[in-house]
Amino acid sequence: MPLTPEQEAEIAEQRAQTRPTLRAVAEGAERHLYIAHPVLDHGFVRMVDYMGDDAAICQAARVSYGRGTRSVQNDEGLIRYLMRHWHSTPFEMCEVKLHVKLPVFVARQWIRHRTANVNEYSARYSILDREFYIPEATHLAAQSTINNQGRGESLTEGEAARVLDWLREDAARAYDHYEAMISQEGQQGLARELARMNLPANIYTQWYWKVDLHNLFHFLRLRADSHAQYEIRVYAQAIARIVADWVPAAWGAFADYRLGGVTLSEKGVACLKRRLAGEVVTQEGSGMSKGEWREFVEIWGG
Amino acid sequence: MPLTPEQEAEIAEQRAQTRPTLRAVAEGAERHLYIAHPVLDHGFVRMVDYMGDDAAICQAARVSYGRGTRSVQNDEGLIRYLMRHWHSTPFEMCEVKLHVKLPVFVARQWIRHRTANVNEYSARYSILDREFYIPEATHLAAQSTINNQGRGESLTEGEAARVLDWLREDAARAYDHYEAMISQEGQQGLARELARMNLPANIYTQWYWKVDLHNLFHFLRLRADSHAQYEIRVYAQAIARIVADWVPAAWGAFADYRLGGVTLSEKGVACLKRRLAGEVVTQEGSGMSKGEWREFVEIWGG
Amino acid sequence: MPLTPEQEAEIAEQRAQTRPTLRAVAEGAERHLYIAHPVLDHGFVRMVDYMGDDAAICQAARVSYGRGTRSVQNDEGLIRYLMRHWHSTPFEMCEVKLHVKLPVFVARQWIRHRTANVNEYSARYSILDREFYIPEATHLAAQSTINNQGRGESLTEGEAARVLDWLREDAARAYDHYEAMISQEGQQGLARELARMNLPANIYTQWYWKVDLHNLFHFLRLRADSHAQYEIRVYAQAIARIVADWVPAAWGAFADYRLGGVTLSEKGVACLKRRLAGEVVTQEGSGMSKGEWREFVEIWGG
Amino acid sequence: MPLTPEQEAEIAEQRAQTRPTLRAVAEGAERHLYIAHPVLDHGFVRMVDYMGDDAAICQAARVSYGRGTRSVQNDEGLIRYLMRHWHSTPFEMCEVKLHVKLPVFVARQWIRHRTANVNEYSARYSILDREFYIPEATHLAAQSTINNQGRGESLTEGEAARVLDWLREDAARAYDHYEAMISQEGQQGLARELARMNLPANIYTQWYWKVDLHNLFHFLRLRADSHAQYEIRVYAQAIARIVADWVPAAWGAFADYRLGGVTLSEKGVACLKRRLAGEVVTQEGSGMSKGEWREFVEIWGG
Repeated sequence: MPLTPEQEAEIAEQRAQTRPTLRAVAEGAERHLYIAHPVLDHGFVRMVDYMGDDAAICQAARVSYGRGTRSVQNDEGLIRYLMRHWHSTPFEMCEVKLHVKLPVFVARQWIRHRTANVNEYSARYSILDREFYIPEATHLAAQSTINNQGRGESLTEGEAARVLDWLREDAARAYDHYEAMISQEGQQGLARELARMNLPANIYTQWYWKVDLHNLFHFLRLRADSHAQYEIRVYAQAIARIVADWVPAAWGAFADYRLGGVTLSEKGVACLKRRLAGEVVTQEGSGMSKGEWREFVEIWGG
Repeated sequence: MPLTPEQEAEIAEQRAQTRPTLRAVAEGAERHLYIAHPVLDHGFVRMVDYMGDDAAICQAARVSYGRGTRSVQNDEGLIRYLMRHWHSTPFEMCEVKLHVKLPVFVARQWIRHRTANVNEYSARYSILDREFYIPEATHLAAQSTINNQGRGESLTEGEAARVLDWLREDAARAYDHYEAMISQEGQQGLARELARMNLPANIYTQWYWKVDLHNLFHFLRLRADSHAQYEIRVYAQAIARIVADWVPAAWGAFADYRLGGVTLSEKGVACLKRRLAGEVVTQEGSGMSKGEWREFVEIWGG
Repeated sequence: MPLTPEQEAEIAEQRAQTRPTLRAVAEGAERHLYIAHPVLDHGFVRMVDYMGDDAAICQAARVSYGRGTRSVQNDEGLIRYLMRHWHSTPFEMCEVKLHVKLPVFVARQWIRHRTANVNEYSARYSILDREFYIPEATHLAAQSTINNQGRGESLTEGEAARVLDWLREDAARAYDHYEAMISQEGQQGLARELARMNLPANIYTQWYWKVDLHNLFHFLRLRADSHAQYEIRVYAQAIARIVADWVPAAWGAFADYRLGGVTLSEKGVACLKRRLAGEVVTQEGSGMSKGEWREFVEIWGG
Repeated sequence: MPLTPEQEAEIAEQRAQTRPTLRAVAEGAERHLYIAHPVLDHGFVRMVDYMGDDAAICQAARVSYGRGTRSVQNDEGLIRYLMRHWHSTPFEMCEVKLHVKLPVFVARQWIRHRTANVNEYSARYSILDREFYIPEATHLAAQSTINNQGRGESLTEGEAARVLDWLREDAARAYDHYEAMISQEGQQGLARELARMNLPANIYTQWYWKVDLHNLFHFLRLRADSHAQYEIRVYAQAIARIVADWVPAAWGAFADYRLGGVTLSEKGVACLKRRLAGEVVTQEGSGMSKGEWREFVEIWGG
């Protein structure tokens, strides 16, 4: 269970009282505010603040004074135009702040997206909780034989059980020793900043992460992708559902032009044009490498 | 006058209706929302959105679930601690969006602060208005003789009048020709992206500028400083007044530790320690250059 | 003529003497170093320093100790793989520093790319030169009637002549008054930071601009594009030629996957698949807007 | 031992041959290139590339064509002026690329400095080595009782021995299981991206880290500081020694104005002025909090 009763109570209290504001309010975002959407076995994503909505994107693109008398339909057309033509700055005018609880090895991938603001729980000041990510057996997969990076088939039952035992036992022992090292009962107690080094990468940490919509879309495009590691992808998917409710028009444009879209190389364009003209094109004739051709055929057929 | 009646009406409409939100609301910011604070002869600064408040800084620093039961006094102490020890990330958790109208030469200085989001009025799409910054005579100063960068004494009345005539006439003529070039009456009409090159740097532009509080403080420290050019300083001061109402505790810490503070070099520290011990220290004995010594004496006396 | 004899001499001197280094040396870059490639009537681009080469991209991607024994062919394959799969960080390991002389209105577009380092010639300290961009008559185009942003047909000879006269006369007069205002002959002389406001946007400025290869590619993709304004596009093209010599493998991958590539929306993919299956698809049946359809047909035919 | 004989050979090979370049060459940097400076028990820092030198800072500040005929003394004066007046952009014109081997918990602190380029060894693709940071007994300290963040006294011998046993045993067991999980002998072998989660935070990773001099100074100011955790401070100090040789004038200015300097709050300035005037000021009379006063007295005496 990701949250304690006290934490649940704090969240409930925050959702209990609205306040009047003159700012743009996105109804779809208000429905999510503060709620912890569970991810993995102990993690969550929750939106703790947001700035702007679909109309705010258009307002900035037009550098206008009010919210305008334009229809929602006009706004959607403008947003699709901006997305299609890579006008990224209007999307930067929306901002979201998330509170995320996640395993350390996921956090290490996540932080590679540098254009964001982060405040992480400090293991120099504070004591980490005894919470470790232990995958479900069905998510334990072998190293991919096609792709050096990624997973192949699921492990057999016996091998999976062995893995899970190790993960559980090693985490428990590491945490026992962490506690024993920092304990001040009958000893001085090791500094927290040192003791934490004994903890494995599946321990949970948490942070406040604030990012603008353009950079969030970039994160989602890479991390909600099927090539992303499963454990970060589920976070990206949880965020995606929040974003879809918060800024539905921007999300729609993103889903069409980026998530569902395809980028063709010059060679790929030439190949498709020849096919459209009725020609049969082979890998050799395409100028593409075997890897490129395999990826091309996955989408366009052989 | 910076705003047309239509623009005033749009702003009034935005201020007329509040909506309920679950987000943190900063009363001091709500009082400013949408209102155009006049700056220079045709410019303004207006806050069009904000995220967070003083408590949000502490919430992120503590990575906490709710807004906490801590007192305002505890929050202020934490904020001062964070500012004093250069913990900048919690201040990045607040964000503000400003709509600014400003002369192009001010915009060119401003944009050097890169960690912000900007949408500027496009002179490729749209026609710029006939509005130019013409300084008040009292702000027309001679080149500084001490400082290569900056202003010295005010110009005499006659010289100032001559300058103002040139500024007014050249701006008017440049704009007449701009209009004549893009006009489609009896001719094709030059593309806007080309015609704009005839306009001088005192023409007004406008943009939406969104920035986090940490980077805004950095902007204010450099641009509200007495060494900054007057024309950008008045914008920084207008923004400072908004910020002081929005996040009073963070502003207080910033004013004490940064704006009102002083940075001493190692040589400056050594010099002050010798003085505290009763020694008389001269420039030669201080190890400082003449420039450094002059700046040191300005603060600490000779 | 963009350079004075003194400047030419300084550049010749820099090119006259090599020094030994242990760093990676890119022969293609060395050929360009310091040379001012002319752009527009008074502008130029010149590479003044660089870090890294194609092999450095691979070295960082592999986090390896030496330059490796891998063949150039392997490196090229890896670089293409990285580009195709949006692994941007290895490209950030190359850096280039350019000295650019450009009209102010071009500089204003350019600076919107924020992930770069810039030092611009200061018109607060220094006096700007009497150099203005005056377009060639053939580049004077009317406002586009299809695209709100951009140019249409060339102006007729008479209209073009009128435009050029205004541009020349207004620039000359503005500069005369700029000089007269800052002059200290028989008067105090207006501060430079104020006098500059009289100068039009076609005056030349210059800066040192330093950027990593990933962000430079992003700049080139947007600014070497046919939709970019001609006056910035020619700078992007001049830079592109330098980059192609500096990091030929990275340039090749960029040219194939980005410059010559095409991004299809989900609707565009569906439409192409139907066409490949022999179906005739109309705009109505495609789900695309008229604008999208027009852009789609430009590439794929009607 | 941080390096294998093969790695040593690769480095020796890189240092064996110089190549001619037209670029600025910093002799002090050339002496360090590629050499692995040991840090902690298995880590190192080595400079693998650099761009610019002290003169390049001045060249960009002056936006000049050549390297100038200015003396080294003039350059140093300009560099000190730039540092004193917070002109950060000229320092951004120098860039350095480091190859660093470091424990994961140090990497997690380090990466919070976002304005840098990073390529880390991927534990999704590759297998991590069996190398863990085990502190020297003298560096095992108790949690500080004054400062929530940081270390107090050294542990007693017995307690230290117990800690070291746990650290060694848990690391060894975790790595044994990591190896057993990914092994493909007689089983499928767990995907590397999953198996790595069992490894503790004292395992070593490595990365290429590229940063400009301004941001590197910011990193050094925070991480070479006595309040920084020992394990990152030793990396900062190793880098500092390289920088001091690479750009001696910039380093000198940084050491005087930042590292050795002191920032006083407005209250601190007022208090010192009263003292200089002969007054005795107490904490109560100073307006400072107890924490501020303690920090003030540490520098200026009670």
